[in-house]
Amino acid sequence: MAREIERKFLVANLDWKQLAKKKTHMAQGYLNDIQQPGSKSSIRIRLEGDEATINIKSLEIGLSRDEYEYPVDVSDAEKMLKTLAVGPVIEKVRYLVDIEEHTWEIDEFLGDNDGLIVAEVELDSEDEALELPEWIGREVTNIVRYYNISLTQKPYTTWSEDEKNSFE
Amino acid sequence: MAREIERKFLVANLDWKQLAKKKTHMAQGYLNDIQQPGSKSSIRIRLEGDEATINIKSLEIGLSRDEYEYPVDVSDAEKMLKTLAVGPVIEKVRYLVDIEEHTWEIDEFLGDNDGLIVAEVELDSEDEALELPEWIGREVTNIVRYYNISLTQKPYTTWSEDEKNSFE
Repeated sequence: MAREIERKFLVANLDWKQLAKKKTHMAQGYLNDIQQPGSKSSIRIRLEGDEATINIKSLEIGLSRDEYEYPVDVSDAEKMLKTLAVGPVIEKVRYLVDIEEHTWEIDEFLGDNDGLIVAEVELDSEDEALELPEWIGREVTNIVRYYNISLTQKPYTTWSEDEKNSFE
Repeated sequence: MAREIERKFLVANLDWKQLAKKKTHMAQGYLNDIQQPGSKSSIRIRLEGDEATINIKSLEIGLSRDEYEYPVDVSDAEKMLKTLAVGPVIEKVRYLVDIEEHTWEIDEFLGDNDGLIVAEVELDSEDEALELPEWIGREVTNIVRYYNISLTQKPYTTWSEDEKNSFE
């Protein structure tokens, strides 16, 4: 069984930016409200670098769901996310930074999560030693409100000062 | 200014079918409920013969609306209309029948309008003489519930016997 082991941190400053080897603009949002009674599908626009898609998934309960995905123009995807998205848009710039044998993924959120920067690194085992770069801040690996699914439901710009400054 | 002059009839029998020079399967339906508060777009799947599209239109009030349209696979469109459409699906087979200088469009509805067959002919002027083929039935040109927009809101299978049999 494959198992992903990741640690997640805030950043202490922006020194990592000059080290980035790659920068990708990513955004996704929904065109319909899947919470509405009678909704039969989710309709998602996703933008990743110079590619964009529209994805339609059936909302059936059960093991399998139908899924349809088609490419759309990046400029169309940007405009749809800006003007037609229902609910929060997850929008971020992902930077890749190599530090020794690890590649850090640093997500600088925009839109409804503006102000949040999270650095993630994948490890081979849970007890693998990891030297933290000096621009790494507090660890948030186990704080649920930083999970991607949480940020969709309760985006960072709606957090209280307490939620932003507490690490329990 | 262009102005379309059309007369619309029911059919008295199915004799027109053997005269058809072309037959096209057409269907359209919406993936979201545009009546829901908070809806920002309409998301329509349309199937016409061997082509299908997904169309997204902004629901702004005003002169102009943004519109996005992409091709989708016909088999995907058929399955989406069958399983994911919200509200009535307009589905029909359109037959073209040439009678002297006129081409009749005969729509045999399926799905939510099953049982309805309507024959339309375009004329050059309102008082143009028109010889009616023997398979033509009652004229319904001026009956609002036969308009396409009406059939979307109140499909034929929901009509009372009175509504089906009255021609006023």
